[in-house]
Amino acid sequence: MTGMESASPRVGVVLCGCGRFDGSEIHESVLTLLNLVEAGATPVCLAPDEEQWAVCDHFSGEAREGESRNMLQESARIARGEVQTLASANAGELDALILPGGSGAAKNLCDFAAAGAEAKVHPDLAELIRQMHAAGKPIGAICIAPAIVALVLGDQGVSLTLGGTDGAAEQAAQTGAKMIPSRVDQIVVDEVHRVVSTPAYILAQNIAETQAGIRKLVAQVLAFCAVPS
Amino acid sequence: MTGMESASPRVGVVLCGCGRFDGSEIHESVLTLLNLVEAGATPVCLAPDEEQWAVCDHFSGEAREGESRNMLQESARIARGEVQTLASANAGELDALILPGGSGAAKNLCDFAAAGAEAKVHPDLAELIRQMHAAGKPIGAICIAPAIVALVLGDQGVSLTLGGTDGAAEQAAQTGAKMIPSRVDQIVVDEVHRVVSTPAYILAQNIAETQAGIRKLVAQVLAFCAVPS
Repeated sequence: MTGMESASPRVGVVLCGCGRFDGSEIHESVLTLLNLVEAGATPVCLAPDEEQWAVCDHFSGEAREGESRNMLQESARIARGEVQTLASANAGELDALILPGGSGAAKNLCDFAAAGAEAKVHPDLAELIRQMHAAGKPIGAICIAPAIVALVLGDQGVSLTLGGTDGAAEQAAQTGAKMIPSRVDQIVVDEVHRVVSTPAYILAQNIAETQAGIRKLVAQVLAFCAVPS
Repeated sequence: MTGMESASPRVGVVLCGCGRFDGSEIHESVLTLLNLVEAGATPVCLAPDEEQWAVCDHFSGEAREGESRNMLQESARIARGEVQTLASANAGELDALILPGGSGAAKNLCDFAAAGAEAKVHPDLAELIRQMHAAGKPIGAICIAPAIVALVLGDQGVSLTLGGTDGAAEQAAQTGAKMIPSRVDQIVVDEVHRVVSTPAYILAQNIAETQAGIRKLVAQVLAFCAVPS
């Protein structure tokens, strides 16, 4: 909390569009904001000022040819306009960082969906995660977003969850990250690296299950903020 | 509850896009779904299979020329694909109806933003509201959406809130509706017409204030469901 325990922690929330197929999962993003504000924290929404990997029809589930949407503009729908470019993010001005999920986390913010453990993370985000981690500031990752944290911090043996142990978790484990199974309403907490993760819509059957895990994740991230490392 | 008190009430949630400037307000829509599911109800998302009034850049706030988006497809982002056409909605299969806000409620679902008390409501929605009301089934309206209810049921003297008493509320009062001031975290309940409304982002400074009112609105709508009229 930048030295003042009574101040409202400023928590970066990394968005990358508005919709589970081509951007950030909307429920996970909104519930992150809800739990942060209800707990007295200040969300700082961040998004790349770049085009999405694709535009998907969320009714049919199919990608649409020849269309493009900008991640900053689409993320502003979720953030109600209060969003900054990821390039302008400064770890020194944030007390914590949370990454909601959605396909965009694995296709816009990195190419994990295509390249697995060989994927590259968006350089601005990789740098932000490294700086937050180096400063002992907590990081929360939801749904598929722990894959991003694995790509950046896996070589340090960070513990994360992607729900189960196969598929994406098997890929993520190849980074060196310890992939721990988790129930949908639970969190995996790495006390050493101050990283918290929860499966959300990897496992959730409905929005209430998603909320159960995200509420705990936000509480644990803020608990880390309250006790400087 | 279609005669069975133990069944999960089926609650229509009327969406009209994905974003406060050109469609449904995302936080209000997601929080409606959250509170319904947490209370054991079953949301039934509905949206017109038609083009939005406009496409707005939610970062700058400006409408973009030459673009169009379909309300059903964009609403599917909020509904995670589980959305039906408004034209297919059947009051006999619903126990209650809730209308989240956003500019789309006043520009896609009716033309209240342009025409005030002279506005026309989307015919499928007007018919659905009339049928729900005639069957004694509760209706909830959030933010600017009470204007839609005023346009359909104002001549019956329904009580509603749009937060204050000037501006939109003054326009809505010309339908015959009784416009009652309300705090952001409170609801206005019309016990006779079984209509519940709350100001949400007409007054809310943040998502927690919006949630406080919507949580009460959903609870009251479901309380009406539990006691047939």
